[in-house]
Amino acid sequence: MQAYSALLKILNQAIEQEQVLLKTAIPIELYEPMNYIIGLGGKRVRPLLTLIGCDLFEANPNDAINAALSVELFHNFSLIHDDILDNAPLRRGNTTVHEKWNHNIALLSGDGMMVKGFEVLSKSNEKQIPELLRLFSKTGLQVCEGQQMDMNFEIQEKVSVHDYIDMITFKTAVLLGCSLQMGAICANASLKNQQHLYEFGMHVGIAFQILDDILDVYADDEKFGKQVGGDIISNKKTFMLLDAFELADENQTKELNHLLYSNIISNDDKVKQVTALYDLLGVKELALKEANKHTDIALKHLDELDANQSKKNNLKEFALHLLNREM
Amino acid sequence: MQAYSALLKILNQAIEQEQVLLKTAIPIELYEPMNYIIGLGGKRVRPLLTLIGCDLFEANPNDAINAALSVELFHNFSLIHDDILDNAPLRRGNTTVHEKWNHNIALLSGDGMMVKGFEVLSKSNEKQIPELLRLFSKTGLQVCEGQQMDMNFEIQEKVSVHDYIDMITFKTAVLLGCSLQMGAICANASLKNQQHLYEFGMHVGIAFQILDDILDVYADDEKFGKQVGGDIISNKKTFMLLDAFELADENQTKELNHLLYSNIISNDDKVKQVTALYDLLGVKELALKEANKHTDIALKHLDELDANQSKKNNLKEFALHLLNREM
Repeated sequence: MQAYSALLKILNQAIEQEQVLLKTAIPIELYEPMNYIIGLGGKRVRPLLTLIGCDLFEANPNDAINAALSVELFHNFSLIHDDILDNAPLRRGNTTVHEKWNHNIALLSGDGMMVKGFEVLSKSNEKQIPELLRLFSKTGLQVCEGQQMDMNFEIQEKVSVHDYIDMITFKTAVLLGCSLQMGAICANASLKNQQHLYEFGMHVGIAFQILDDILDVYADDEKFGKQVGGDIISNKKTFMLLDAFELADENQTKELNHLLYSNIISNDDKVKQVTALYDLLGVKELALKEANKHTDIALKHLDELDANQSKKNNLKEFALHLLNREM
Repeated sequence: MQAYSALLKILNQAIEQEQVLLKTAIPIELYEPMNYIIGLGGKRVRPLLTLIGCDLFEANPNDAINAALSVELFHNFSLIHDDILDNAPLRRGNTTVHEKWNHNIALLSGDGMMVKGFEVLSKSNEKQIPELLRLFSKTGLQVCEGQQMDMNFEIQEKVSVHDYIDMITFKTAVLLGCSLQMGAICANASLKNQQHLYEFGMHVGIAFQILDDILDVYADDEKFGKQVGGDIISNKKTFMLLDAFELADENQTKELNHLLYSNIISNDDKVKQVTALYDLLGVKELALKEANKHTDIALKHLDELDANQSKKNNLKEFALHLLNREM
């Protein structure tokens, strides 16, 4: 990340400036929650990717700062609304907006935050606005589609591994590709370079999400920030669970269904026994293989990118750093 | 309206085409509610204004069709979300989206519909997109601000008539101004003409909203589509109620508060007695005067507009037709 300390400085300053504006904007009931959710931090991966996408082509990263802020505002809008949809009490260890205020405030300030994303985008370089708007709005719609697919999965009986990859692609991965490509657009990069960068970001996003699923089950209890096995307890249709259902024989399917829907088994036992089945079926390895496949595709696109080699190396290192979190 | 039959034809065809797309888009849970709410109809005043704003300057109204659709999509997104916020069971005599499906579907399809508005906007003429985006996003944010102000009024003890005008300006009127100006932008109209048109639309919007308040109390029972006195029954802080509080002496204030917060008075009596107080205080006349003031300002801006006189006359007639609904 040291390679990006200058970009992070630019980004953090811009976010702080945006927060100063939000702090004094009225009506405060609309803007305070926006300031709150941005203030919860996070790694700012998406807007950083936008600046990186611009810097890669030797352009001034300041040219991409509005696009970067747009992406961060959109991402935070989606967090506010997703937390309503999931009825989540906590976000980054803090109370969610709808819990801290109420559902109506969360709904409306989320709406405002999304519009604000487009408003900030409109401050970009005039020449690049049409292209930025086309990409950003298309991606925004895909994120909504991914979120709807995820909601559908909860009540859908049969979900294939293929459906799952589609869902995480839309819900999470396309915004990473979009973030990078928006930076490239701001740098006037060629369409071919833009597309390689988009594909790189998108496939890193898919790999990241699959690894996240693995981490939820196989992380070291002490190093993992949240409860290991949380996805198993909540019957979340992850890559591994869907794979397990596809590979299980009749008895194993029965056992898996019993573990998921029994009311008498303890959470600890549920996690232990589902994990044992995962081990037996080898779904962790399959998930790792799938993640690696997408990492490889991503790196191939990075290879084909026509840009400064040392900057490409930095981006590769950054992506691998994101992917290789502690197991 | 006959002057606009050609524009309405273009508009309705475009909306139908959009509905065909929505009908087949997946996931259907996201797109079906969008199609449903658009299918409920309405007078399509906003997108028609966009086409009118373009046609005024002798440009091809087809050049403004994407901007017109954007405005209609944004308006319908706001209906879906406002109905959640107000917990409304009905919209245009039909079940609201959150009632027909559920809150999560309404939240997410509303989000998607707003993004779709921006996506359709991005299909406009490349040269005009930056200006369109700046106006549209600024206005969208103001609409959210107006909605928040309206929500604040419900729990705020002291609301001035001035606050009220601000609220309806943001919640309703600016989108009418924006709709017209977007059409003018698509016609490459001068900034001065754009601004006159915006002000015209905005002040017509303010007048319309005040007249709507009057109509709610003084409409002819049989000709009015909804319950006369609905605003009084729900203690809605309308122009007339706020004016009444500003004009009432101590005893009248007591009486008004008693009528609003008593649990024993029937709705019929409440409507009758509050109306009697309105009559005594002359707030209907004051509201009419305020509405007329804004109509006059609007018409003055239309006068100053540099455009074809007969087209200006059509627009004047259309606005007066909107304002002079049956009392």
